[in-house]
Amino acid sequence: MTIIGTPLTKSATKVLLLGSGELGKELTLELQALGIEVVAVDRYPNAPAMQAAHRSHVISMLDGDALEAVIRQEKPSLIVPEIEAIDTETLTRLEEEGYRVIPTARATKVTMNREQIRRLAAEELNIKTSPYRFVETKEDYEKAIEEIGIPCVVKPIMSSSGKGQSIVRVQNDAPTAWTKAFDQSRGSSEKLIVEKFIPFDFEITLLTIRHKLPEGTAATSFCAPIGHRQISGDYVESWQPHTLSQPLLDQAEGIAKQITEALGGYGIFGVELFIHSDVVYFNEVSPRPHDTGLVTLISQNLSEFALHARAILGLPIPKIKQLGPAASSVIKVKGDSRQVSFHNLHEALAKEDTSLRLFGKPEVSGERRMGVALALGETLDEARKKSAAVSDHITVTLN
Amino acid sequence: MTIIGTPLTKSATKVLLLGSGELGKELTLELQALGIEVVAVDRYPNAPAMQAAHRSHVISMLDGDALEAVIRQEKPSLIVPEIEAIDTETLTRLEEEGYRVIPTARATKVTMNREQIRRLAAEELNIKTSPYRFVETKEDYEKAIEEIGIPCVVKPIMSSSGKGQSIVRVQNDAPTAWTKAFDQSRGSSEKLIVEKFIPFDFEITLLTIRHKLPEGTAATSFCAPIGHRQISGDYVESWQPHTLSQPLLDQAEGIAKQITEALGGYGIFGVELFIHSDVVYFNEVSPRPHDTGLVTLISQNLSEFALHARAILGLPIPKIKQLGPAASSVIKVKGDSRQVSFHNLHEALAKEDTSLRLFGKPEVSGERRMGVALALGETLDEARKKSAAVSDHITVTLN
Repeated sequence: MTIIGTPLTKSATKVLLLGSGELGKELTLELQALGIEVVAVDRYPNAPAMQAAHRSHVISMLDGDALEAVIRQEKPSLIVPEIEAIDTETLTRLEEEGYRVIPTARATKVTMNREQIRRLAAEELNIKTSPYRFVETKEDYEKAIEEIGIPCVVKPIMSSSGKGQSIVRVQNDAPTAWTKAFDQSRGSSEKLIVEKFIPFDFEITLLTIRHKLPEGTAATSFCAPIGHRQISGDYVESWQPHTLSQPLLDQAEGIAKQITEALGGYGIFGVELFIHSDVVYFNEVSPRPHDTGLVTLISQNLSEFALHARAILGLPIPKIKQLGPAASSVIKVKGDSRQVSFHNLHEALAKEDTSLRLFGKPEVSGERRMGVALALGETLDEARKKSAAVSDHITVTLN
Repeated sequence: MTIIGTPLTKSATKVLLLGSGELGKELTLELQALGIEVVAVDRYPNAPAMQAAHRSHVISMLDGDALEAVIRQEKPSLIVPEIEAIDTETLTRLEEEGYRVIPTARATKVTMNREQIRRLAAEELNIKTSPYRFVETKEDYEKAIEEIGIPCVVKPIMSSSGKGQSIVRVQNDAPTAWTKAFDQSRGSSEKLIVEKFIPFDFEITLLTIRHKLPEGTAATSFCAPIGHRQISGDYVESWQPHTLSQPLLDQAEGIAKQITEALGGYGIFGVELFIHSDVVYFNEVSPRPHDTGLVTLISQNLSEFALHARAILGLPIPKIKQLGPAASSVIKVKGDSRQVSFHNLHEALAKEDTSLRLFGKPEVSGERRMGVALALGETLDEARKKSAAVSDHITVTLN
């Protein structure tokens, strides 16, 4: 089925990567190793994936005309979104013409919109989620808070990571939450979601791979659950495996299989789930590698990027092996600089089974994820301590 | 000690890669993951490493002026040779000026010349090698054959892989061997080596890493021995670990430590050794990753490329873990084409613990190594069968 030709010729198997951050860079490295031609796109020059790709284009991917022009110019074998903020209407139209979008244009459209993905999960598929209301007017908003009850969570229907999200703990929080959600929403989203605050015990990412079987049908494979810790909606630490009881694991895999089957196509999905007591709740899903899954760069025989590369190319996914308890720890840099340097790396990497990625991002303005520390340990606790020690040892200068 | 800055700025840690083949490409992928700026050089455009590097230069690296111009233009933090065929006089001169050559300019010079490396090993370090003579005239050549005895091996003192090499099994082979050695020698080499043919039991590559300790001194680490099979001097299959008895392993590591210490610098070396009965003979050494070491892409927690990247950057090399018996099997393509395509990849990769690299080389003219199949197995035999099956399953079209 899969054919891989010669890069930079008509026979090339060409991937157009929409979004060129650290996740796209790792995917690019995997695709390069397989002789794929990679064209990286993002809104700023010298983005991480661009540095390792064959060539790049700098455009706003929310600009449908610019996006269409690049796609028509490049005529890629596969269009591979790395982020949400893409004009999905253009992808849908071009998919109808015959372009292949990973996993599908519909999946990129549905998953970036909290209303569409929630209605698909809860109303069409009957997957357990927290109770919710979608509101457009202040009147409906107040009514929704009353019905859902306090505490509740307020989010714009479109935004990335934790942007625009608040917890309403007392009635007085409501007006601020309303304003924040609209201020920090993406693009034209004019609705909010109000959902019941579930005092979950923990949340996990279940990396779920839809891949092609020899007979042409799709199979679903799972990585071990990934636990993570967030600060203001941004992941700072993740670990794998986050052990679940068999009944919880069965529920989690069942939900992940159901939602990814409904979205369709091939590739890896990051299914975000809440666990409260003996119930698994669906939260969100990204139809692409997930940032908490950076831990798989050290924890598995095939990382989430190697798995995504295989799945999107139509290659098989044999058994995924866990190499031991593992953790990732984000390296954040604060300040303003276009010449960030990382020091003390010898000491940071002195322990066995530790590793490092530096993303090569061209600048920091405020606070930015610039790298990730990785470690394997005898136990999860040891792995987490080791990866945290790697990132703690690294010192940074801004010139 | 090690500082890694922002690629494409003055703060960048910049590697100039001299030679951009498949080994350079894998090194480039490792360096990219660490945020290193990589500039790839080779004599033809779109060479494998160029495709994954930040930018590239097309020059003959045997042209000292062209080489010097590129180095002065790029001002790299590290000059990293990937092949032998480089004007090493230029490297020596620029090293004296303060440029850092990996592992050292002298090592690149000595190891590309069979006379210099043999005299260093046998005469200065008293390392066991086969008996040898260096000859320039036909008269000395005939005398050498008489003294060494038949069968003997005749090689030019400079050539890559098995080029220009013959076995003289009967007196009548001598004139052909003489002509072949001169015809296929590299550059200005005007001497031959005549050495006794040792009916060795097997040969191994011992990957040896010289790396920096926190206190600034050098340490030596070893990968498990790699066995390999060659056809006309080109490796077609390699496997790891090739188990040696403890006394043989001690001899092998002793020789590797001695020769790499004498060459100096930091990085990985491929030390080629012959084993005959209970004696280890030194053959050759490459001061860089070795092609038979491609097996480490699947056999170790850190591949030879990851190890080289760490060592040249002054990062630590903690314990190297063997993930199980492993093998690599070369994918060769015969014919003439600039549009080679690889088919049947789904079937080829169906078994667990198999993997693939396609180098993305822009053309084939004759016969060329275009990829490598990799496998882990329960036993070496199973790993070898699995990797061979991957390469056997792949079909190729030339358009």
